[in-house]
Amino acid sequence: MSEYKTIDVAATQMLDKAKEIGFLTTFDRAKAQEPRCTFGNTGICCRICLQGPCRILPKKPGGNKGVCGAADYTIVARNTVRYIAGGAAAHSDHGREIAETLLHTAEGKLKDYQVTDVDKLMYVAKNIGVETEGRDANAIAKDVASAALAEFGRINEAEELTWLKSYAPENTLNIWRKTTVMPSGINLSLAKLLHQTHVGNDSDPVNIIFGGLKVALCDIDGQHLATDLSDILFGTGVPVVTEANLGAIKADKVNIAVHGHNPLLSQMVVKAAKGMQDEAKAAGATGINLVGICCTGNEVLMREGVAIATNFATQELAVMTGAMDAMVVDVQCIMPSLRSAAECFHTKIVTTSPIMKIPGSYHYAFDEARAMDSAKEIIRLAIDAYKARDKAKVSIPNITNKVVAGFSLEAMLNIFKKVNPDNPIRVIADAIESGEIKGIAALIGCNNLKGTHDQNHTAIAQELAKNDVLLLAGGCSAQAHALAGMMNGEAVQQYAGEGLKKFYARLNAASGLTTDLPLMFHMGSCVDYSRMQVLVNMLAAEMGLDNSEVPYVVSAPEAMSEKAVAIGAWNVAYGNPTHVGVIAPTVGSQLVNDVVTKIAEDVFGGYFFWEPDAAKASARLIDILEERNWKNVMRKKARDAKAEAN
Amino acid sequence: MSEYKTIDVAATQMLDKAKEIGFLTTFDRAKAQEPRCTFGNTGICCRICLQGPCRILPKKPGGNKGVCGAADYTIVARNTVRYIAGGAAAHSDHGREIAETLLHTAEGKLKDYQVTDVDKLMYVAKNIGVETEGRDANAIAKDVASAALAEFGRINEAEELTWLKSYAPENTLNIWRKTTVMPSGINLSLAKLLHQTHVGNDSDPVNIIFGGLKVALCDIDGQHLATDLSDILFGTGVPVVTEANLGAIKADKVNIAVHGHNPLLSQMVVKAAKGMQDEAKAAGATGINLVGICCTGNEVLMREGVAIATNFATQELAVMTGAMDAMVVDVQCIMPSLRSAAECFHTKIVTTSPIMKIPGSYHYAFDEARAMDSAKEIIRLAIDAYKARDKAKVSIPNITNKVVAGFSLEAMLNIFKKVNPDNPIRVIADAIESGEIKGIAALIGCNNLKGTHDQNHTAIAQELAKNDVLLLAGGCSAQAHALAGMMNGEAVQQYAGEGLKKFYARLNAASGLTTDLPLMFHMGSCVDYSRMQVLVNMLAAEMGLDNSEVPYVVSAPEAMSEKAVAIGAWNVAYGNPTHVGVIAPTVGSQLVNDVVTKIAEDVFGGYFFWEPDAAKASARLIDILEERNWKNVMRKKARDAKAEAN
Repeated sequence: MSEYKTIDVAATQMLDKAKEIGFLTTFDRAKAQEPRCTFGNTGICCRICLQGPCRILPKKPGGNKGVCGAADYTIVARNTVRYIAGGAAAHSDHGREIAETLLHTAEGKLKDYQVTDVDKLMYVAKNIGVETEGRDANAIAKDVASAALAEFGRINEAEELTWLKSYAPENTLNIWRKTTVMPSGINLSLAKLLHQTHVGNDSDPVNIIFGGLKVALCDIDGQHLATDLSDILFGTGVPVVTEANLGAIKADKVNIAVHGHNPLLSQMVVKAAKGMQDEAKAAGATGINLVGICCTGNEVLMREGVAIATNFATQELAVMTGAMDAMVVDVQCIMPSLRSAAECFHTKIVTTSPIMKIPGSYHYAFDEARAMDSAKEIIRLAIDAYKARDKAKVSIPNITNKVVAGFSLEAMLNIFKKVNPDNPIRVIADAIESGEIKGIAALIGCNNLKGTHDQNHTAIAQELAKNDVLLLAGGCSAQAHALAGMMNGEAVQQYAGEGLKKFYARLNAASGLTTDLPLMFHMGSCVDYSRMQVLVNMLAAEMGLDNSEVPYVVSAPEAMSEKAVAIGAWNVAYGNPTHVGVIAPTVGSQLVNDVVTKIAEDVFGGYFFWEPDAAKASARLIDILEERNWKNVMRKKARDAKAEAN
Repeated sequence: MSEYKTIDVAATQMLDKAKEIGFLTTFDRAKAQEPRCTFGNTGICCRICLQGPCRILPKKPGGNKGVCGAADYTIVARNTVRYIAGGAAAHSDHGREIAETLLHTAEGKLKDYQVTDVDKLMYVAKNIGVETEGRDANAIAKDVASAALAEFGRINEAEELTWLKSYAPENTLNIWRKTTVMPSGINLSLAKLLHQTHVGNDSDPVNIIFGGLKVALCDIDGQHLATDLSDILFGTGVPVVTEANLGAIKADKVNIAVHGHNPLLSQMVVKAAKGMQDEAKAAGATGINLVGICCTGNEVLMREGVAIATNFATQELAVMTGAMDAMVVDVQCIMPSLRSAAECFHTKIVTTSPIMKIPGSYHYAFDEARAMDSAKEIIRLAIDAYKARDKAKVSIPNITNKVVAGFSLEAMLNIFKKVNPDNPIRVIADAIESGEIKGIAALIGCNNLKGTHDQNHTAIAQELAKNDVLLLAGGCSAQAHALAGMMNGEAVQQYAGEGLKKFYARLNAASGLTTDLPLMFHMGSCVDYSRMQVLVNMLAAEMGLDNSEVPYVVSAPEAMSEKAVAIGAWNVAYGNPTHVGVIAPTVGSQLVNDVVTKIAEDVFGGYFFWEPDAAKASARLIDILEERNWKNVMRKKARDAKAEAN
């Protein structure tokens, strides 16, 4: 075991180097924050007005409530849903920007973008009720983009969100309507939730949580349209083979990392780099090498096969190699400390969004109207930086792992079609119904150094695979598996149980791919999790089940960001049991904690559970899948008996 | 001095009673929260992601930043603007509800509401560019309401907020445009600010603060349209004489308090009560008595002359009288503890908003389509409660003070017109230019038990008056003055300096009112502060000054809510020096604190200062006014000298 809280060997090497040069990384800072404030950590510190901070101090007379009289359950509920608000705002605002770009593209205003995936455009248009018959792709794209933008501007509460309404099963929609959590406008719902949680407003924890769930459903709506429209603009992922870990940074090349979440600029960087290899060579390099970090990395991995350098927790360590010439960042999960790390080397940190700046960095205000020019300018900055690179400071861990990725839902269904051309989703249904696999687990979420970097991501994946659970992955979790060498066919042989191996063997025999399928299907960035939910929706329909009866679980061993809280919340509302590997700041209120971990199941079928121990978490996830399977068998038996009796 | 942290004698009596019966009030809870957590209190505790809470711990290696690398300035800036977001969401959502009701009224869908103030409708329509010529009032109202609703749904960032653009002076608008703080859509700006402050997004404190100022300008926009549209629906305030303090609760009547912020229901309660006196008499009471608390109280005070019972900090004490039969609450600043207080008596707490519920209270879902019916049902609930009142538990402090209120800007200008029919605003300009008064101070904001209830509100008002400062008031601050007996003509004689007295004498001689004007002009609830800003805008234009040159200051001695932070922020952006009597949670970052207390002046002309000591705060406010006057005199001299030289 390393002296650092990571299982990644390459990271350990770079942490040694950081120590040597005296740079304090996020691993040091995480240590410095221990022990945590118990009030904040359990959610019972309220800073919603300037009479605060108020903390629940049950032993002091009058201290069992905040100054306004807010009880622990009110404080915890308010804090929790404000996390959801932050997360849904981030995801959906990302979607809004993609929608604007698609609109302007369809209107012919942007020279650097075009409708790339017409099939996806048609599929989305049909789903959301945009007329396609005899119409030009740009005309359809304009309507689709406008429908997406309407989600943000809508203030008529009698109308429902288009994407949500178009994709969610009727049963689920009706539960949401009955519980008043079905949203109308994304930004309206955000504003109302902030209002609801203002001092002296709602103190009913259940009502507050319902307000939060409404916003969480805005999160998946914003996510979903972001994914659909990104696919239309840049193409829908198909299987790619590439590599992961710090060894993907090449000493002889101009290295540029794309980092953040929004693909609008990074796609241009990938495109521009192809034509600029000669400029890099003129500077003495053998070419330009792109690597990805966090979800911008996932975006260009899925669509362009760009290698993964690191995930969230280890982003500073890409700079620490001394060979990173520029890191181009857009939005979300970008450590401000990158700039300090860059100061130890020659690396240029380039910020590009008007709402994401780092003091002391280069800021290229990204303008969709001259996207390609911006991309070229940034690459030239990297080439210039390369010239200033101090080779004595370069040390790149010689570690990379083979990665098979690019599994959009479409790509997965295409493979299933090779086994069952008429009904591809049946391939999974059959495997579940026959007991070959126990069900599906979505491995998602961030890094969180309250635990050990990537440890539980990989441990849970291995344990589930051993127990014949089919794995989907996304976000920083997917990158954990990729970095650890688990996202390839060899890992199936190493980790999968017999049932899962058989399932894979059948797929591999039919797939027509030049490589075996990986242990987990990487479905994209953290804004792409709707792909997983649509798969579950299809499976529920195929198996004749309610969503909440599908043997499907979600695990976020290292949930960190507000987006993660929003994602968790809509998973629960969708009926999915959702594991979080961090003790959530709901435990300060027994009532709220019980609502989200127990009572939620009675209402939505989904619920949370907190479990930092990988073995215990895996065991419970497997139990849940087995229980759902058992119930489904019992239900079927009861139906058969009834049919026989008639 | 009372043993309690209040200067209000009636409150002291009720706090004695609370002690006797063992009920812990907000005064006890405030004491229990001392000493405050230094991290939270100074703004350097970050809970924006689940790796937190992170606290700035400069002495620990790696502890001088959060786990992600966020420095104190990033953490403080993010926390600050998220306060602004909460406040702007609350204010503007209130405005949106009024706009919806006006729209539905104009469309003829609501039987209980109508366009009441056609003059105001015409004035607003002309200001925002709605055609009025030859059009029916409802048609105009529909367009005005639609223009208001468009502020919330707008997502085209190339367009600007209508109200802001229509009312702010061109100079000010240009400063906002240049600094990128001019907003387009209210809800869009809120969503973007949440996104901007998500983990791993903006770490540039100035950029974050600019994002916050943009949202603060959404706050005044939402406020302004709320005020305009409420005036159109319910009438614009005219001078009224009434009373304030707990003695306004009457032992022989059915007492109903209206509490919160939104007048949509409370106006109906006032109207309904008039026709239901007999029902109260049939139950043994001599009639129905309405009193107001917080800003719903201010709304019905301004328009209907309803007496004030308490302000924010003492709301529980209205229940403590034992004679409060029902408290009808809508949104914002309603203590959850009201329900616990009510349990000691027979009081019914009635919540009415879907986003403001209190467990265990009566919830009447307010529906504008049957507003009057709802109001009647609630009054009947109060009458029923009256029958169950235990007279042995009744003890109402025998304290009331005369209140002269109702000073909408229109009401003030009508009085000035009596002195200067052609140019009413000249009346103030003359008084300032002649040195009769030093300028204007807006006394605003909440209660905050970090200090002593109402002490600094009244002390600062008295000191400013003594120094010939014309006083405007609103929100809970106005109620502090009313409760203390300072909102009448007698107080002018008692507290005003010679200049201010002369100014008042001139107005009183001309006003045509049956009562002398009060020491401060009560301009309405905390959502009505745009009335003050429009007055300043008019004065700037009349005096040939930039907004930031007008001798005008703002003081919020007990700022408490997130709304107060938003209000303070737009005052600063508008060029107003703004006193806050609570040490703000910005002091944890010298940089951010300097930006908002010093550098802001260079950019916007306005700035904050924190000063909990009333004498020091008053002295500084007076200094600022004197400095602005002196600069204006110097500017005039320079102009005159230049003119003479030519």
